Amino acid sequence: MSQEYTDFVINSFGPKATPRSRRIIGSLIQHIHDFTRENYITVDEWMYGVEFINKIGQMSDSTRNEGILVSDVLGLEALVDTQTHAVAERHGSSTAATSSAILGPFYRENSPVYKNGESIIIKEVGGVKAYVSGKITNTQGEALAGAMVEVWHCAPNGLYEQQDPEQPDFNLRGTFYTDKDGFYSFVCLEPTAYPIPYDGPAGGLLQFMDRHPMRPSHIHWRVTHPSYHSLITQIYNREDPYTEDDSVFAVKEDCVVDFIKADGKIAEEHQVEKELRFSVALELEEFVQQDRKKIYAQQKALEDHLHEKSRLNSTTK
Amino acid sequence: MSQEYTDFVINSFGPKATPRSRRIIGSLIQHIHDFTRENYITVDEWMYGVEFINKIGQMSDSTRNEGILVSDVLGLEALVDTQTHAVAERHGSSTAATSSAILGPFYRENSPVYKNGESIIIKEVGGVKAYVSGKITNTQGEALAGAMVEVWHCAPNGLYEQQDPEQPDFNLRGTFYTDKDGFYSFVCLEPTAYPIPYDGPAGGLLQFMDRHPMRPSHIHWRVTHPSYHSLITQIYNREDPYTEDDSVFAVKEDCVVDFIKADGKIAEEHQVEKELRFSVALELEEFVQQDRKKIYAQQKALEDHLHEKSRLNSTTK
Repeated sequence: MSQEYTDFVINSFGPKATPRSRRIIGSLIQHIHDFTRENYITVDEWMYGVEFINKIGQMSDSTRNEGILVSDVLGLEALVDTQTHAVAERHGSSTAATSSAILGPFYRENSPVYKNGESIIIKEVGGVKAYVSGKITNTQGEALAGAMVEVWHCAPNGLYEQQDPEQPDFNLRGTFYTDKDGFYSFVCLEPTAYPIPYDGPAGGLLQFMDRHPMRPSHIHWRVTHPSYHSLITQIYNREDPYTEDDSVFAVKEDCVVDFIKADGKIAEEHQVEKELRFSVALELEEFVQQDRKKIYAQQKALEDHLHEKSRLNSTTK
Repeated sequence: MSQEYTDFVINSFGPKATPRSRRIIGSLIQHIHDFTRENYITVDEWMYGVEFINKIGQMSDSTRNEGILVSDVLGLEALVDTQTHAVAERHGSSTAATSSAILGPFYRENSPVYKNGESIIIKEVGGVKAYVSGKITNTQGEALAGAMVEVWHCAPNGLYEQQDPEQPDFNLRGTFYTDKDGFYSFVCLEPTAYPIPYDGPAGGLLQFMDRHPMRPSHIHWRVTHPSYHSLITQIYNREDPYTEDDSVFAVKEDCVVDFIKADGKIAEEHQVEKELRFSVALELEEFVQQDRKKIYAQQKALEDHLHEKSRLNSTTK
């Protein structure tokens, strides 16, 4: 069936449908119909798709969100995250703000507060210890004192503490505050690569795409400071081969880092083999809000355009 | 993020991904990313979508398929049905084959076999009785003797017999065979409009679209004959206002019918108020298979094109 049929479906919306609903659902219908026509989708293929969609929800519960996993494998979450959090203009900044990444399902609030330089390893679980340090600044390069830095990562067995009965509560996660020079530091492990759950529809997609389920080894960060936009991100070890081939396409170039052999003094003082220097630049909340307003204005302009088009259509009928 | 990112995701497929999977999933990724960019979808909107998808499966079980309902409300099932079953060429036929429609969830095999002219009403449930008759032919207009005609419809309360403890088994459904002149006839009720289930995601979509959940009153048909393509369809009462405004966009013009006041003799003989004449033309199975082959050839051509494009891309890298 032709575009005429698709127009008929889109024009079936009642008068009380909001402009936003007309825009989003109208566009969804257009894309689904185009996809169906362009690929000559048959009834059997459609039925396969219906059962695939049904299975997404059937595998999801309070501890697993298969809808997010499927989004991730299709590169959708990374796209939406960047589209929402990227600041389109530099606002005269001297440094780009650090790129965001998704929060992921393993974040926990109120992790233990440590002093700078302390370790987040509550129980030894193997792995290579690393001393991580750097500065939190704004995009002018000015140090931010009192910024809160939360970090978390999995154990060498690929499990976060809440997934692993062998690890004590809050193992490998902690909260730090920057000093008056914006400086933070802590001891953790070099992180470990692990697979996303692949026994459901997302795993099926990976198989169709002939892709592995591995996420590159990474450390999660959440950095907050009053009047700055909270940064949620992940940093990736450049040496991990999956950093170039992330199953969920989340790696941002400025968050790929180098764990180097620790300097003698640091190695001795912190009992670590490796060292990482990583600094973070936060964007002013005000600038992010200005950019959000631009997104909303673009959405509104699209809605006005669609409204005008539908008004003209109904006039010429 | 730009098309460059989308190309990166599509080009991440491994060498063992089949051409079909590259075509379908590659196109799906392209459309989902385009949709996301064109509408400036934010993280909050995406999260709403993820929960919407999860809920589809969570509401589905062996007696309810919410994935199909959501497809229907978006006009997708009707599009796929037409695309799969329409015969693109007339093959020199004098009459068009009767249009197909979806089978729906209430079909049962082995409904009671009646003689022509008998009634499918096992228990009186109210409503207006109608005598339905006509011919089953091929697309040359030649009568098909021994064609099997299965019909089923809901009671005036909007329920099919298997949904309704008040109705006996197989009420309002029956199987008839055409005589040597291709003629069939039976007595049923003028059908009744009813809503699709609207307490789940499909109902949510209907609300967003400001649409009602009603399907126009209809009778389901399945007509089979050796060497002809089985026809699954629905006929709609022209007087029903929902025939012009079906919640699932399934109405085909050639299946809109007129129940008229029964002729005196028929009214008396069959104890009916209404009468309907409806004839059906079946397509040769051979022609439908030829058309299917065309669909598969179009799909194959698309796959070859994509393969060639990806080969050129990897050469120029």
